[in-house]
Amino acid sequence: MTGCQYHGRFGLLIIVPANIFMSLHVLTFMDNPVVTFQPSGTRIFSEKGYSVLEAAQIAGIQLHTLCGGKGVCGKCRVRILGLKKYTKEEKTLLTEEEIKKGAHLACQVIVKNNMVIEIPSRSFSGEKLTILEGFRREVEIEPNVKKIFLKLPHPTLEDNRADVERMKDSLQQKITVETMTPEALQKIPGVLRGSHFEATFVFVGNELIGCEKGDTTKRKYGAAFDIGTSTVVGYLLDLTTGECLAVSTRMNPQARFGEDVVSRIAYGQTEEGLKTLNTVIRDCLVEIIDELSHAACVNCEEIYELSVAGNTCMHHLFLGVSPQSLAISPYVPVVKEALSVRSNLYGKKMYVLPIIAGFIGGDAVADLIAYPFDDELRLLIDIGTNCEVILGTEDRMMACSAAAGPAFEGFHITCGMRASPGAIKRVTIDDSIAIETIGGVPPCGISGSGLISIAAEMVRWGFVDPSGRLQHSTSRVKDDKFMLTDTVYVTQKDLRELQLAKGALFAAQRILLKAYKADIADVKEIILAGAFGSHLPTESAKTIGLLFDVPTEKIKSVGNAAGVGAQLCLLSRRERERARTLSERVEYVELSLRKDFQQEFIDAMRFPHADLTLFPSVTKTLAKTSPYFTSPLKE
Amino acid sequence: MTGCQYHGRFGLLIIVPANIFMSLHVLTFMDNPVVTFQPSGTRIFSEKGYSVLEAAQIAGIQLHTLCGGKGVCGKCRVRILGLKKYTKEEKTLLTEEEIKKGAHLACQVIVKNNMVIEIPSRSFSGEKLTILEGFRREVEIEPNVKKIFLKLPHPTLEDNRADVERMKDSLQQKITVETMTPEALQKIPGVLRGSHFEATFVFVGNELIGCEKGDTTKRKYGAAFDIGTSTVVGYLLDLTTGECLAVSTRMNPQARFGEDVVSRIAYGQTEEGLKTLNTVIRDCLVEIIDELSHAACVNCEEIYELSVAGNTCMHHLFLGVSPQSLAISPYVPVVKEALSVRSNLYGKKMYVLPIIAGFIGGDAVADLIAYPFDDELRLLIDIGTNCEVILGTEDRMMACSAAAGPAFEGFHITCGMRASPGAIKRVTIDDSIAIETIGGVPPCGISGSGLISIAAEMVRWGFVDPSGRLQHSTSRVKDDKFMLTDTVYVTQKDLRELQLAKGALFAAQRILLKAYKADIADVKEIILAGAFGSHLPTESAKTIGLLFDVPTEKIKSVGNAAGVGAQLCLLSRRERERARTLSERVEYVELSLRKDFQQEFIDAMRFPHADLTLFPSVTKTLAKTSPYFTSPLKE
Repeated sequence: MTGCQYHGRFGLLIIVPANIFMSLHVLTFMDNPVVTFQPSGTRIFSEKGYSVLEAAQIAGIQLHTLCGGKGVCGKCRVRILGLKKYTKEEKTLLTEEEIKKGAHLACQVIVKNNMVIEIPSRSFSGEKLTILEGFRREVEIEPNVKKIFLKLPHPTLEDNRADVERMKDSLQQKITVETMTPEALQKIPGVLRGSHFEATFVFVGNELIGCEKGDTTKRKYGAAFDIGTSTVVGYLLDLTTGECLAVSTRMNPQARFGEDVVSRIAYGQTEEGLKTLNTVIRDCLVEIIDELSHAACVNCEEIYELSVAGNTCMHHLFLGVSPQSLAISPYVPVVKEALSVRSNLYGKKMYVLPIIAGFIGGDAVADLIAYPFDDELRLLIDIGTNCEVILGTEDRMMACSAAAGPAFEGFHITCGMRASPGAIKRVTIDDSIAIETIGGVPPCGISGSGLISIAAEMVRWGFVDPSGRLQHSTSRVKDDKFMLTDTVYVTQKDLRELQLAKGALFAAQRILLKAYKADIADVKEIILAGAFGSHLPTESAKTIGLLFDVPTEKIKSVGNAAGVGAQLCLLSRRERERARTLSERVEYVELSLRKDFQQEFIDAMRFPHADLTLFPSVTKTLAKTSPYFTSPLKE
Repeated sequence: MTGCQYHGRFGLLIIVPANIFMSLHVLTFMDNPVVTFQPSGTRIFSEKGYSVLEAAQIAGIQLHTLCGGKGVCGKCRVRILGLKKYTKEEKTLLTEEEIKKGAHLACQVIVKNNMVIEIPSRSFSGEKLTILEGFRREVEIEPNVKKIFLKLPHPTLEDNRADVERMKDSLQQKITVETMTPEALQKIPGVLRGSHFEATFVFVGNELIGCEKGDTTKRKYGAAFDIGTSTVVGYLLDLTTGECLAVSTRMNPQARFGEDVVSRIAYGQTEEGLKTLNTVIRDCLVEIIDELSHAACVNCEEIYELSVAGNTCMHHLFLGVSPQSLAISPYVPVVKEALSVRSNLYGKKMYVLPIIAGFIGGDAVADLIAYPFDDELRLLIDIGTNCEVILGTEDRMMACSAAAGPAFEGFHITCGMRASPGAIKRVTIDDSIAIETIGGVPPCGISGSGLISIAAEMVRWGFVDPSGRLQHSTSRVKDDKFMLTDTVYVTQKDLRELQLAKGALFAAQRILLKAYKADIADVKEIILAGAFGSHLPTESAKTIGLLFDVPTEKIKSVGNAAGVGAQLCLLSRRERERARTLSERVEYVELSLRKDFQQEFIDAMRFPHADLTLFPSVTKTLAKTSPYFTSPLKE
């Protein structure tokens, strides 16, 4: 699962480059504050209540953060002139000198009004590099789109070569033209004769796709898409600088026909249903393209190529390919390899990231593109309705998929809601209950991360026993409900949903380690990909046994890595080559083939786990507060 | 100019394979007699009045004929059971034995009722060969469409390869799959699971374009098109046997917007006009495809590839490319090379034949494909509104184009009409006037060949002097009109039109010989391509100085060679390679660059020519009857 689903509920989030902000009367229909990031000039219409760090993440600007926005690591320093209010965390982490210069921590500043955010210059480097912060990844910009400006000799009776011949002769060794689209051909005569035979020819791969008057080589754009089960994110990239000029995100409109992958496959069983699912996602992408080009003042025709990453089911549905085979054993996909096809999105050329297996899709490949493994063992987890778990080094990788269900997304939870203002994101229970919500507004529901935080506190205080049974040891438990406020609560059933989800995910991690013949101690880093991962309360996740009991510094959130991977594939042909290799080389472990899976799953459903030796430090902490953790680990 | 324009006026001509004739209730809307050719079983709904030879030509069956259907050579022998009527010519040329067996001459039998025509078996040979009679041309069938039947292993949990991967692994070395259409991908899962994983995969070039249940390798079809300025002909080919299963011909619907190339270019000056011209020809081809598939009981989806030949203007308009540059000096085309593109004709893949120059189009390339030059010098003339003239051997070829205007097609002639029943096709003047019409019905107008025949007779009897002035030496000349019947006549202006046309064409032949530094005596054969060429009264053509004064046996009609060339390119990739070479190697001679063209043109406008030494035998004959040819050549 990927996607900025935590920001998707209210629709449009648009980023606009600085130089065209004057023409933003076209966008005045939006009342949301405008956040401008300097020096890129990227602008985003952010909903109120988000932190600057969150707004930056949505805009595709990955700021350094180790603590995941808790105001602890102090990495997400930015400069905001004129904002004099400082939080306690900022005062602790920033020097007086820094405060004098206007420094702030992006995670501590909540967007209320229009603001200009300066990101320290070290975050940006030379022209040929694109850098994705958070994790630093440098990529040479080498897009599949090529523009070549030619001054052609005028035809004469002595030199009466055809227009295309004339062009090819002038191109010489610059590119081998293999094919031409009819549209490009149709443009050539008018463009040449309207520009004194000085024109720019546009290629995608070795295909001529366009011809433009004069020298337009500097204007070269592409759009990358991350199609998640719940959310679709589109990025408009400048293919010359690698800069992201605009981002637009929407709910996946297929959600109307089924919230999760399984129900969507069921809906797509009929030809009619499949067509509907295909049409709505196509229309959604067309709308996003329109928005992106509008917002960045880029002509839609100047978007020459698209790249698309999605989990296997989204991938199939987007291609109009029936995903039925994914639902029944042996769960084979129809097509696995990367596709370079002409899309039905304005007929633009499109690169579709390859997939790995039935439930390890292009989003997982994109994760690995965004955050490549090196020679140290790493465990990457992309959390969503369907969780992908990948373990390995650059030499050998294994992946499996765990169907966690929608609990992590707040679905099927009695008071569950998407991560949007008013959703509980963190709870601390001591003498009283401290509730944090998104946007700081009164709580009206529980987000996925909120549920994990609550469950962890309940485990900590023994309000729930290791088997997951709700205890009546507190007055907050009424009628099998743990009351957080008068209207927001967690039920026994909610806890069971969470147990199933975290049990499946933890069992998957265990099996993968076994298959790899590795121990969790060998793992250098646990990487959390996906928007959910970056909001995951890691301590709580360890407490309930969703993640291994490893030192917190070993756990790293990398944000919407799938979106980043899709962007990188748009910017670099070398990354596409890497995607191909990954798709072929990552070994897929089919959990249903593993005899030990059932037992692992059952064991992992307990809080934190049936085998407490796996969770020594968690157990030690729990023993201090919960009656269920006494000896022998307390010693 | 190419195309069966001599049969196009009344629209539909459909050929149907024998084995599906029982289902022809679908076609009962046509009242025309059905002519069935055996052993191929090809059937054509012919209009009444055509000869069997003409019907065969329309059906793409080229019968041997040296005399062009005059009942002289006796080569077009066929067998027609039950037809007991014989013409004088048949009685002369056929033996009693042959007559007993039902032999006839195809040129002598007029289609009136349904008939079955048996073509002597020597005309057909082995499975791997396609033979085009008239000129015999053997081509190895090696289409760009490939079908491969695979029995794939069923997926299991242990073997969970993706469908496409599974296919590719099974294909092994048979083909390298470079790309796949989304449509093919969409079909794969349903087809495989509905056929126990036994399916046929369809490739065009290296692109997977389809997937069908079971073994369908035997059903593989394509359509070839010859888009002429006046007529469009489509052929449905069986890509396994090379057989032509159906032919359909229509008026080029663009004619509404301009009869000739120049007026069509003018109409296409606006974006709107260009779009209209493109749309109507596209729709016309779609209709032809529908008709062909209907007639041959071939599913439209089983037509996997199209090939298209057309003169440069038709080529550009069909591609939606503005032909404006063809109309103004230096007359450069937009694109010259062959194109392999996805058409907007049901999205089918399409091969478009390359062109040679602004006025030497894909039809000329197709002529040379159909009738390749060897090491002897040949002169190929494709007569139409625009005439292409090609001179050379296989090592070196030169081409030029002559704008003859529409006189040869009966346009702009006072009593001119298309070659259809009632059109005068031949006139003999002795004591009286003998008039032959198409279909043998009373004359109602003059066809292009009729005009040439009449003019030759007028020259012969001195009714017109060598300068083209009408003489009042006969009572048939009244008010500057030469009366053929009470209502059909030739005017002084008509003669001037003819002089311009034949002058341009003959000057082109002369210039080409000069440029090639060759003499007409070196030319082994004059090849007349195009439907008009096969009806050309060659003796008359020599008399008026349209063709060189060479022995008649040196002049050979090869029928609609452009249509044949388009078919061959559909059947054989090797022929496409030849087309590429031809397009690059044929040297184009631009007449407007030649200083001697004007004088040659003026000289060639005379009957037969200003330089009578060029026409020794014609002059000798003329001297016997015309007062304008006395000494010294009479001696």
